[in-house]
Amino acid sequence: MRIAFIGLGRMGSGMARSLQRAGHELTVYNRSREKAEALGAPVAATPAEACRGCDAALTMLSDDAAVEAVVFGPDGILEAAPIHIGCSTISTAFARRLSAAHQGRYLSAPVFGRPEAAETMKLLVIPAGPAELVQRFMPVFDALGRQTFIAGTEPWQANALKLCGNFMIGSMIESFGEAYNTLRRANVDPHLFLDVMSALFGSPVYAGYGRIIADEAFDPAGFSLNLGLKDVRLVLETAFECASPMPFASVLRDRFLEAVAAGQSDRDWSAVARKR
Amino acid sequence: MRIAFIGLGRMGSGMARSLQRAGHELTVYNRSREKAEALGAPVAATPAEACRGCDAALTMLSDDAAVEAVVFGPDGILEAAPIHIGCSTISTAFARRLSAAHQGRYLSAPVFGRPEAAETMKLLVIPAGPAELVQRFMPVFDALGRQTFIAGTEPWQANALKLCGNFMIGSMIESFGEAYNTLRRANVDPHLFLDVMSALFGSPVYAGYGRIIADEAFDPAGFSLNLGLKDVRLVLETAFECASPMPFASVLRDRFLEAVAAGQSDRDWSAVARKR
Amino acid sequence: MRIAFIGLGRMGSGMARSLQRAGHELTVYNRSREKAEALGAPVAATPAEACRGCDAALTMLSDDAAVEAVVFGPDGILEAAPIHIGCSTISTAFARRLSAAHQGRYLSAPVFGRPEAAETMKLLVIPAGPAELVQRFMPVFDALGRQTFIAGTEPWQANALKLCGNFMIGSMIESFGEAYNTLRRANVDPHLFLDVMSALFGSPVYAGYGRIIADEAFDPAGFSLNLGLKDVRLVLETAFECASPMPFASVLRDRFLEAVAAGQSDRDWSAVARKR
Amino acid sequence: MRIAFIGLGRMGSGMARSLQRAGHELTVYNRSREKAEALGAPVAATPAEACRGCDAALTMLSDDAAVEAVVFGPDGILEAAPIHIGCSTISTAFARRLSAAHQGRYLSAPVFGRPEAAETMKLLVIPAGPAELVQRFMPVFDALGRQTFIAGTEPWQANALKLCGNFMIGSMIESFGEAYNTLRRANVDPHLFLDVMSALFGSPVYAGYGRIIADEAFDPAGFSLNLGLKDVRLVLETAFECASPMPFASVLRDRFLEAVAAGQSDRDWSAVARKR
Repeated sequence: MRIAFIGLGRMGSGMARSLQRAGHELTVYNRSREKAEALGAPVAATPAEACRGCDAALTMLSDDAAVEAVVFGPDGILEAAPIHIGCSTISTAFARRLSAAHQGRYLSAPVFGRPEAAETMKLLVIPAGPAELVQRFMPVFDALGRQTFIAGTEPWQANALKLCGNFMIGSMIESFGEAYNTLRRANVDPHLFLDVMSALFGSPVYAGYGRIIADEAFDPAGFSLNLGLKDVRLVLETAFECASPMPFASVLRDRFLEAVAAGQSDRDWSAVARKR
Repeated sequence: MRIAFIGLGRMGSGMARSLQRAGHELTVYNRSREKAEALGAPVAATPAEACRGCDAALTMLSDDAAVEAVVFGPDGILEAAPIHIGCSTISTAFARRLSAAHQGRYLSAPVFGRPEAAETMKLLVIPAGPAELVQRFMPVFDALGRQTFIAGTEPWQANALKLCGNFMIGSMIESFGEAYNTLRRANVDPHLFLDVMSALFGSPVYAGYGRIIADEAFDPAGFSLNLGLKDVRLVLETAFECASPMPFASVLRDRFLEAVAAGQSDRDWSAVARKR
Repeated sequence: MRIAFIGLGRMGSGMARSLQRAGHELTVYNRSREKAEALGAPVAATPAEACRGCDAALTMLSDDAAVEAVVFGPDGILEAAPIHIGCSTISTAFARRLSAAHQGRYLSAPVFGRPEAAETMKLLVIPAGPAELVQRFMPVFDALGRQTFIAGTEPWQANALKLCGNFMIGSMIESFGEAYNTLRRANVDPHLFLDVMSALFGSPVYAGYGRIIADEAFDPAGFSLNLGLKDVRLVLETAFECASPMPFASVLRDRFLEAVAAGQSDRDWSAVARKR
Repeated sequence: MRIAFIGLGRMGSGMARSLQRAGHELTVYNRSREKAEALGAPVAATPAEACRGCDAALTMLSDDAAVEAVVFGPDGILEAAPIHIGCSTISTAFARRLSAAHQGRYLSAPVFGRPEAAETMKLLVIPAGPAELVQRFMPVFDALGRQTFIAGTEPWQANALKLCGNFMIGSMIESFGEAYNTLRRANVDPHLFLDVMSALFGSPVYAGYGRIIADEAFDPAGFSLNLGLKDVRLVLETAFECASPMPFASVLRDRFLEAVAAGQSDRDWSAVARKR
């Protein structure tokens, strides 16, 4: 398919390459042109221009504001894109606004995975939106990741699912931090605890984050604490819309704010679980 | 080795059979005699009597009070057991009291795993205590589980590790509960979320608990909410000794208390994450 | 002074009458016209019309959205009002937006007090904004309440102070709830505890809310739980802007959400501390 | 009456002098003899000796362990005291143990107030126990404070009430801390906020603690953070016995633990609300 790919950060670049490898035709747009050129695809001067002749525009940007600029800003894709596939981790409220503005021509398709996974088609892809549209773009989703899960017929449901998934990881991180800090003071080596937890949970995610936290290897960030805080804030907003209390998420929010105040914003979000 | 095995609940019975299969000689004691007889080993009338001629007494009981009765009560094992191996999930403070009372002849060796794992030698075993003693009883630990992790030279360190491990599982349970409750109100099926989380974490523990919670299959209890609350209380006590704040554990405690007030005590501890 | 008074709910009506009694000339506007007519002042057909010839427009509305409609909506006051005095409890972010839109012709002046206090000039008034403007309208503030406190030279600072003040009251309410619930189960009468707390704190606010909560007299609402939840959400947003963790506020948010889920939205916000 | 007064710390000394001024006859005991001699009353060599010929022994000590030593230790008062009036802030569990051990000859009578209040008969006194006993010792309670509130017929009920009262103060302290920290970052002076809160709550306790916290005047401690942490722990234990969730108390516990880790143990407990 012909895709206008907008947003070539670390995640976006990997995803774009996965699409190219699967034979999709890309025209790309990125705020800083160099990253766009690195991809070897035609580079557009504006988001709208990237959409010319495309089947869909796919956006992979850092937050609501960045997507807002690309959709509603000057030379935005609102009218230019026949279909908009939003892969960014955005708020459920903003996803609903996008649905309304695109008048049914919008899909959310957030993804789980770090940049390495984006590069190697190992993402999990979570599309949601009108069933016919989701089916039409299955080849795109399947090219992005190792598994595709349809979250529902309303785009924002995928964003709700994505935010809750990040919340699960954030909770695991905080749990490690609390356990490690207690055990350190009990003179039990966090690495030993990690070995037991790895054997217990048998999860590469536990093994991976558990090691980063035990080693305090928070630099460079795989996913920055700033963005982690954003996602915690967003899951709490979604919970608010749903009138659903999330006390763990509330604690996480406060812990991330403490971490920001302690100057940890640009480190990996697992720095919320640092030694104290 | 000759082992006085004390405490034949669901976990204890499985562990005792594992030891028998590995060729260890057991004399058993249990408060209710029938369970003891089911094992086919000599049954003692008192804990002390079970210890006659043994290399060590192994206790697997429900809490501090039960262990206290068997150790310090009439016909207790305090003097009778040459070595005491405590596998129960007890408080770190009580583990230190046992160490002192047994004057160095005490090991803690708590285990991770459900009754099925106890039966099939799939437990994780976490011994701690004087190095020479731990080495001497390695054949016992190896016969109980699939992997043995030495937590330290002071017995209570193993209990600290065990409590923190249960805290990790409890945190995962609560996280599922919060996410499911939010997603239900967003009309996203918890089972779909579970599928994504299973793919993301790749952990049988996530898959297992995630399903129990999505299905609300809290009866019969694999591990009762009552006991879960006990363990949360104990990890908070250990954290208190260590002057280590554990805000997730604090939330868990309140959630378990709410669940108790809502009549969930005898259900599986994952009922803390029930639909609300 | 000539004041365009916009928003004649229970609080607004009392405040308007206080201004009239102090000799200020009012033109009023309210969405439902009857309340406006009850005041005996000229009634305008639109917010903008109310501003004709006035020295300032004063708004007393329920939330950001209501103020937004009156300021930026059709026939809004944005251009019509020479000065805008915002008394509503709004978000700090929206207060900054108002400042920018009014180009320095905006003051925030939120108030503390229940409707009875509004009627009897017993409010506390918290103006903030350009010093010269605050001074010019001191006769208005002094006519509204028993005491005036200038929060700063930026309007949103008054809103931050107001939200933190409501947070203090909300925290007191939750504290009563937790203490009462524990004491009820200890067979200690909440009214006895209230007597001790009244003697200890010597505060009419403790005595008043303590009694409402002990008597479970949540209907009719003096200040509805819905609005309480709104304010907790807003104080958390302000704390977020300030990167300041507020764990009590986080707990409050979850408790209000539970109360909403339990159907308490329209009762007094102290129903968050109801019997459980 | 003839009172064996045991425990002459800052609170105890003031209380003892109040009793002397009201005409009661004291024999005193204190671990360090100098403080006892300062009072001008006969000084006993042991707790038991102090009880000879007395109507009741009154204990005012720092915690469960100190009371345990004086009651159950060598030369303790268990048999020697005809009646034991426990004024210390102890756990509800230990109060029940004292009731049982004294076989009905035990009253709890904890007090609210700082050392200055103890000196000037301004305490609030909260007796509980068998009605006849409480009545018999009313002259003692009335001599200690400005008001007496009977909490119930079981001694531990008074301790539950006292712990909940300290929780109310602790919650107010934490609330101030959160609000001040947010407002400082909004460039609103905490002292201004304090003035508004003083006008709003009209409470000398708010004015007093609010000023200590705004001024960061945590030294010397009126009531040490260490003891504050103890009381938070105890109220959570009581809540646990009552199966009553207390999320604010849970937050407080974590905040006190953080403060201890930050080296604040010996400062005033309001240091939990220090600048961050």
